[in-house]
Amino acid sequence: MHTDLPLEELRVRRSAVVEPADFDDFWARTLDEARRADDEAPRLAPVSHPLRTLVVDDVTFPGFAGEPVRAWFRRPARADGRLPVVVEHVGYGGGRGHVLDGLAWASAGFAHLLVDSRGQGAGWSRGDTPDPHGSGPAVPGVMTRGIEDPETYYYRRYLTDAVRAVDATRRLPGVDPDRLAVVGTSQAGAAALAVAGLRDDVAAVVAQVPFLCDVPRAITVTDESPYREVADYLARHRDREEQVLRTLSYVDGVVMARRATAPARFSVALMDAVTPPSTVFAAHNEYGGPARLRVWPYNGHEAGEADDLAESIAFVSDVLGSPA
Amino acid sequence: MHTDLPLEELRVRRSAVVEPADFDDFWARTLDEARRADDEAPRLAPVSHPLRTLVVDDVTFPGFAGEPVRAWFRRPARADGRLPVVVEHVGYGGGRGHVLDGLAWASAGFAHLLVDSRGQGAGWSRGDTPDPHGSGPAVPGVMTRGIEDPETYYYRRYLTDAVRAVDATRRLPGVDPDRLAVVGTSQAGAAALAVAGLRDDVAAVVAQVPFLCDVPRAITVTDESPYREVADYLARHRDREEQVLRTLSYVDGVVMARRATAPARFSVALMDAVTPPSTVFAAHNEYGGPARLRVWPYNGHEAGEADDLAESIAFVSDVLGSPA
Amino acid sequence: MHTDLPLEELRVRRSAVVEPADFDDFWARTLDEARRADDEAPRLAPVSHPLRTLVVDDVTFPGFAGEPVRAWFRRPARADGRLPVVVEHVGYGGGRGHVLDGLAWASAGFAHLLVDSRGQGAGWSRGDTPDPHGSGPAVPGVMTRGIEDPETYYYRRYLTDAVRAVDATRRLPGVDPDRLAVVGTSQAGAAALAVAGLRDDVAAVVAQVPFLCDVPRAITVTDESPYREVADYLARHRDREEQVLRTLSYVDGVVMARRATAPARFSVALMDAVTPPSTVFAAHNEYGGPARLRVWPYNGHEAGEADDLAESIAFVSDVLGSPA
Amino acid sequence: MHTDLPLEELRVRRSAVVEPADFDDFWARTLDEARRADDEAPRLAPVSHPLRTLVVDDVTFPGFAGEPVRAWFRRPARADGRLPVVVEHVGYGGGRGHVLDGLAWASAGFAHLLVDSRGQGAGWSRGDTPDPHGSGPAVPGVMTRGIEDPETYYYRRYLTDAVRAVDATRRLPGVDPDRLAVVGTSQAGAAALAVAGLRDDVAAVVAQVPFLCDVPRAITVTDESPYREVADYLARHRDREEQVLRTLSYVDGVVMARRATAPARFSVALMDAVTPPSTVFAAHNEYGGPARLRVWPYNGHEAGEADDLAESIAFVSDVLGSPA
Amino acid sequence: MHTDLPLEELRVRRSAVVEPADFDDFWARTLDEARRADDEAPRLAPVSHPLRTLVVDDVTFPGFAGEPVRAWFRRPARADGRLPVVVEHVGYGGGRGHVLDGLAWASAGFAHLLVDSRGQGAGWSRGDTPDPHGSGPAVPGVMTRGIEDPETYYYRRYLTDAVRAVDATRRLPGVDPDRLAVVGTSQAGAAALAVAGLRDDVAAVVAQVPFLCDVPRAITVTDESPYREVADYLARHRDREEQVLRTLSYVDGVVMARRATAPARFSVALMDAVTPPSTVFAAHNEYGGPARLRVWPYNGHEAGEADDLAESIAFVSDVLGSPA
Amino acid sequence: MHTDLPLEELRVRRSAVVEPADFDDFWARTLDEARRADDEAPRLAPVSHPLRTLVVDDVTFPGFAGEPVRAWFRRPARADGRLPVVVEHVGYGGGRGHVLDGLAWASAGFAHLLVDSRGQGAGWSRGDTPDPHGSGPAVPGVMTRGIEDPETYYYRRYLTDAVRAVDATRRLPGVDPDRLAVVGTSQAGAAALAVAGLRDDVAAVVAQVPFLCDVPRAITVTDESPYREVADYLARHRDREEQVLRTLSYVDGVVMARRATAPARFSVALMDAVTPPSTVFAAHNEYGGPARLRVWPYNGHEAGEADDLAESIAFVSDVLGSPA
Repeated sequence: MHTDLPLEELRVRRSAVVEPADFDDFWARTLDEARRADDEAPRLAPVSHPLRTLVVDDVTFPGFAGEPVRAWFRRPARADGRLPVVVEHVGYGGGRGHVLDGLAWASAGFAHLLVDSRGQGAGWSRGDTPDPHGSGPAVPGVMTRGIEDPETYYYRRYLTDAVRAVDATRRLPGVDPDRLAVVGTSQAGAAALAVAGLRDDVAAVVAQVPFLCDVPRAITVTDESPYREVADYLARHRDREEQVLRTLSYVDGVVMARRATAPARFSVALMDAVTPPSTVFAAHNEYGGPARLRVWPYNGHEAGEADDLAESIAFVSDVLGSPA
Repeated sequence: MHTDLPLEELRVRRSAVVEPADFDDFWARTLDEARRADDEAPRLAPVSHPLRTLVVDDVTFPGFAGEPVRAWFRRPARADGRLPVVVEHVGYGGGRGHVLDGLAWASAGFAHLLVDSRGQGAGWSRGDTPDPHGSGPAVPGVMTRGIEDPETYYYRRYLTDAVRAVDATRRLPGVDPDRLAVVGTSQAGAAALAVAGLRDDVAAVVAQVPFLCDVPRAITVTDESPYREVADYLARHRDREEQVLRTLSYVDGVVMARRATAPARFSVALMDAVTPPSTVFAAHNEYGGPARLRVWPYNGHEAGEADDLAESIAFVSDVLGSPA
Repeated sequence: MHTDLPLEELRVRRSAVVEPADFDDFWARTLDEARRADDEAPRLAPVSHPLRTLVVDDVTFPGFAGEPVRAWFRRPARADGRLPVVVEHVGYGGGRGHVLDGLAWASAGFAHLLVDSRGQGAGWSRGDTPDPHGSGPAVPGVMTRGIEDPETYYYRRYLTDAVRAVDATRRLPGVDPDRLAVVGTSQAGAAALAVAGLRDDVAAVVAQVPFLCDVPRAITVTDESPYREVADYLARHRDREEQVLRTLSYVDGVVMARRATAPARFSVALMDAVTPPSTVFAAHNEYGGPARLRVWPYNGHEAGEADDLAESIAFVSDVLGSPA
Repeated sequence: MHTDLPLEELRVRRSAVVEPADFDDFWARTLDEARRADDEAPRLAPVSHPLRTLVVDDVTFPGFAGEPVRAWFRRPARADGRLPVVVEHVGYGGGRGHVLDGLAWASAGFAHLLVDSRGQGAGWSRGDTPDPHGSGPAVPGVMTRGIEDPETYYYRRYLTDAVRAVDATRRLPGVDPDRLAVVGTSQAGAAALAVAGLRDDVAAVVAQVPFLCDVPRAITVTDESPYREVADYLARHRDREEQVLRTLSYVDGVVMARRATAPARFSVALMDAVTPPSTVFAAHNEYGGPARLRVWPYNGHEAGEADDLAESIAFVSDVLGSPA
Repeated sequence: MHTDLPLEELRVRRSAVVEPADFDDFWARTLDEARRADDEAPRLAPVSHPLRTLVVDDVTFPGFAGEPVRAWFRRPARADGRLPVVVEHVGYGGGRGHVLDGLAWASAGFAHLLVDSRGQGAGWSRGDTPDPHGSGPAVPGVMTRGIEDPETYYYRRYLTDAVRAVDATRRLPGVDPDRLAVVGTSQAGAAALAVAGLRDDVAAVVAQVPFLCDVPRAITVTDESPYREVADYLARHRDREEQVLRTLSYVDGVVMARRATAPARFSVALMDAVTPPSTVFAAHNEYGGPARLRVWPYNGHEAGEADDLAESIAFVSDVLGSPA
Repeated sequence: MHTDLPLEELRVRRSAVVEPADFDDFWARTLDEARRADDEAPRLAPVSHPLRTLVVDDVTFPGFAGEPVRAWFRRPARADGRLPVVVEHVGYGGGRGHVLDGLAWASAGFAHLLVDSRGQGAGWSRGDTPDPHGSGPAVPGVMTRGIEDPETYYYRRYLTDAVRAVDATRRLPGVDPDRLAVVGTSQAGAAALAVAGLRDDVAAVVAQVPFLCDVPRAITVTDESPYREVADYLARHRDREEQVLRTLSYVDGVVMARRATAPARFSVALMDAVTPPSTVFAAHNEYGGPARLRVWPYNGHEAGEADDLAESIAFVSDVLGSPA
């Protein structure tokens, strides 16, 4: 069942999200602090694994506040010259997973950094990165941790990790920093949009069914987690609507999208109840650079799966040039 | 439907939980550190409220690591002499709630401290106490936060707050520290058992359908949260069973119960899938002091509700002497 | 997820409920018969309970057809002069509950009559009042009992009990009949509206997420019980739509609201699927006296809980004057 | 999934239901009162219907307290001599339904009386018989109506209707009273067993997945309604277990079965969660006359459906002799 | 809850289904091939059964590709002259069921052919007719079997069976071929509409909550099976939307309805999520002959049940003349 | 929650499955017919894909009755000498999926044939292989297609495809036929066990949470599909239990396991409700060759996921020798 507005309305939808006056300052300061906290190069450690066609490293790089973030760095075992590189995050609840999962980008000839999500990684896939920050009373899940204030909000840390992952990636061995793409699905699509909006050195962007877009609408049109967690929080902390919406406006993918300029590929699924189509269209329709959007009419949040992936590999190859 | 063993087997059930060798040292050190971090008296602040029969204070006391924990302190507006006092925690996911909730103990003539649960309080009732500690990858909820190690485990902090709540209560105005009871339902029952096991100055204990008892069994016989969160964690972090069970053994209510000596009242519900009857019986059957157990044959985890409360008020009045 | 129309449409919504020509006669006759059946003063019996700050009586008063209805009468143990008084009913399926439940109004200095719901009281809370009237074939629950005719309909009896509860309350000891409010949530909100519409001696009205409003719409826009019971009935007794809607028009809160004049406080929850927002707005928008409406944007049928209660206490204190 | 004990344990299962000392007196008095209240012959009224092969009458007969009970009386349009006759009730929540439903017995050559269930008939099928008796607080459904006492219990009335339906049937036109069978499924199976236990003029009995057998066990081993309604009642009215079980012992099918002598056919379904197999086996294993039992290993409560029906027609034809 | 558009929009709704250019050729060829494959008269076999008022035959007739299709042929045991005859199919997942099921039409004096659904018959009722055709990858259920192409699609075979059932019926003993009606509910309503559109010798049509109408809309507005199976298929086979919608246009009831001319009776249920009201209205609104529509406002897909049946018997009796 | 017997009982569990006398003849004949129908070498076709580290071919090989079966053949782009080879099937409902899915085995240096499941492939992953065989009435899904007889049963065809996949694999380019393993999870584990039991040239076997083992028990202890489909079938076709169990005995993994001799690795999950632990233990405990079993105590049917995969790669590498 289609879960949102008719397609013709989706095509022209704009978000009513209110952009905070100090949005750019907030992020400039946040990222500056993170860089100053620790600007060491990423550390690479060997991994025990059975793969023969790929080289794998266990990477640790400094994220928010310089805190260590883990990632898998995988690339073709035999490569000539510097490789185009793809930075990818993971969906809500999961971590970077097992080193045997998610081999497609590297097998397609890219250097590939798959970045952990701090404090998640005990849900649908395993992670290894802690989030060493507590919070006030919160709904289970990370969505409302520290949501009282943009300074303490979980996604401030998460998105800073995402921006810093690109800093780290540019210093990884064998990588061509001029050919760097950020890609992701759902929560990881939110990361990709944020990086696209907060950096100017990203060459291509892929945001599949991105989360965290047009949040004020999202929390009133779906009952599915993670947006639901915000509604659940406000169902209890009834006097904090303004405060919470303010916090969320600092991480909203629509605001990020307006600032982005790199070529982008979006996808959206019309039967998706997790990231409602109108919220994805809102981000796409306001994206600052050239953007294409693939509509999957009969999918839920799983969207295009490997079909999306194949199109994304083709798109990134187009924009960045194919791996040699 | 009865959710566990036949009643005759429940009556004699013992737990197979393995008690760590340094259990007592662990807790002695933990509590000692907490006391040394901050041993100030509880602070009382006025509360805006419409109650006429009760006096209400918003209490802040030092908990784990001296961190501030909030509580409602309510007592009869007109009382002569020092009052017997009841310390109570709240169930999983909730906080101390609204000052208009939970008026029974104070209306029955007791001084009553209702203590927040750090970092919870955005679920079925509201809380005001943060948990300023991050964690490794965790399942949504607090049950697996820091579960890798007894030192970092959420319930180390939570139960320390419970023990320190008694320290604070003994210094509250109008309270008779020799007539102090700890009471609670579900998670709060776990708090009551822990306090009973870790202190020797508690005069009465009430543990209604207590959580956190015989955990190794609990996590294999129910699919309900919060025990389910441990199984979910181990479903992903498959190599940590031993490590996680070791952590849990430091907070298991059965181990606490063995050390307790104050008169206790338990209740258990035979249709309870949240705290399976066999785990409650295990704690009761190994309790170190005199203990009675009320069996509710047709209830789920809601157990006896106000009927339990009325019996608990009567029990505490019996043991402590009625309020004047 | 918001469950009904957009807020701007809700603000102006009117109901299409058709008011029966003999509505006022029907109720005048019904109430007159009830009063004639038994107009004895309410009987008060002592209750065994542990409360010290409150005085509690177990009240029995004559309701519909003079049949005995039970209630808890609770008030401050020490009060000077006559008290403002609050009459409250309970939500669908429940009864007056345990004497230890619901202590807030009395603790806030009001005399408080908490009235049983005839024949309910075996659901979420316990009751003690029978409904000595059978019915034709009915869907489980009371919603369709006797629904074939306004004369035999359950809610004729229930609302008559509500009106008669006020008659009884005015004769309770220590009560100031000029300062009487009717309050309630959900089904009890329907009772409050009915009393407000059928009496002229009520000084204040509180209807939180009231049930039984704009019923012809309600039964087509929600699948949740109790409105669902009407649809289920008509799904089987397909030829009775007109007959059933006629019966319901005699108890519809919108029709009651049009007749009310006392100052009123409403609340509504935008994620409520039990009493859909449009039906609550309809009653509020057509209310005959001054009315305010609190909108809870992120709550379901639980609405404002103790936050609603606190606002209602403040509202009633404002209108009636604070308890001394 | 099999919902109960292994088949070899079911085969030998006996019930622990306690038989009240005055069971026989209770029923003798009850039936005697019913007969004295109204012992008129059943009234037959014409029905508008399109059937050509059957004659249909709308029957009203005096049931409990002489109250009118409705039934469909259908028989072959062309029949010679007096017909063997089958009296059948309907399952929980339903009524006698539409005159076009349930044509098999009459089409097979039997006179067939399909009897309404008082006060039900708004669930899965429609009914036309009121239950003019109120009750104390009850769980939605009829299962706990009046359950405080055997005198006021719903099933006292229901089973009296069943016994009186046989009195009425014996006086219906064209019927051979010496060839009368009582048949039924689920709740109607309970009716059949009760009639078999309380009368001595029934020639054959069919009880398919009968309800209301070994109730003390049933309410602890299933979560499905209607047994669940008893547990729900006791979950609220916690002090009435003994009282409620006493009431239920007056209507338990196991107690009825012990008194029965007519040849009987039972069926049971091993995946049935509504009438758990152990409770059906209990009634069968203690049945006082010759009894056969068909086991459906892969069915839930729907059991054998038309296959059961065909076997029952064959069984009744065998015992009563085929219709001419 | 009403599941679709407001009634006033439903009343005027038209479908956007695109009619394939070769629709008529496709069906002419398909039916011609079926007739040429096997045009033998239906075979009648005796059935063991207990019915006395009806004659029953187990019919086998040649369907799609001449493949044998099973049916029950039931008619009054004593009939003078040729009977009006009704051909009926069954709903999704079921088969012709037990010979004791569905006796109303024959008992009302009609000859009645109840036709099996090939390859179904293991769901809610039993069938005996295989579907000897495999398929490509398909979603569980028959809805997407062979959906890649109109030639291989399951419903090409199913609807051909329906058309051929009428050929067979005209040759059954005791039948008046000039008084033949096709009737059905849900999937069987789709069969009735198809026969009405593809034949010109049908005298009356009944389509209750017909399935397979306005399919392009249906698959986007409901999550219920069987329409859901198409969405599930396209969720995986994402590149086949055009191909699949083309296949479906050859069997769409709206296209069939446009070609029909016989008097028709439709029914629709406003709370139906299986065959959404807008899709049923679309077929009715574009029906080529005189059509009436019964709206059931409070029913789900069960719609009018025996009330629908009674009205349909009356309607068919009106159009065809009553059975003698 | 643990879904089956205690671990100590599982350790010694044996199946009661009855082995048909002609089991070996049945399979010898079946496989012989398949080989005679078409014994051409597999055909390889190029695939459009972005992978650089792997060579990919789209393979078609003759399966049951010589019918074409599709598979992905993937191996390292740069390999010296003949590679050890792994043949893998997919789980219930899925197909071989997208060429970008499932890259681990090939990336680990193995030649890897991932084989489609005929007629499935529209569920959780896409397939391209039809099953050109119809069936009698069947429950949605393939589990009961043709279940009336071993000759027509779906799994006769499926398992023949599996055996023939090995024939095909031995003729694939670059493959060392002496180092061939069959691996699989759930349904694919059933395929692996069948191949192990029906061939003598397999060097290693991996069966993770294998399906189709000890089926007579499985269908009585779980409600989950696909075992549930058999119970659903027998719930309707009640007279076919013996016939259906006989058919299933020809494909039961326990019977296959008794005949196998190659070293095997099993895994089982104690919270698995899809392939109940007792049925997996039964196959393991009766396995004819050396077998190890990994127990995942806290997983459901997802079992060990990539952890299982890593152990299986290690196991196969051990037994077959590592890829060069």
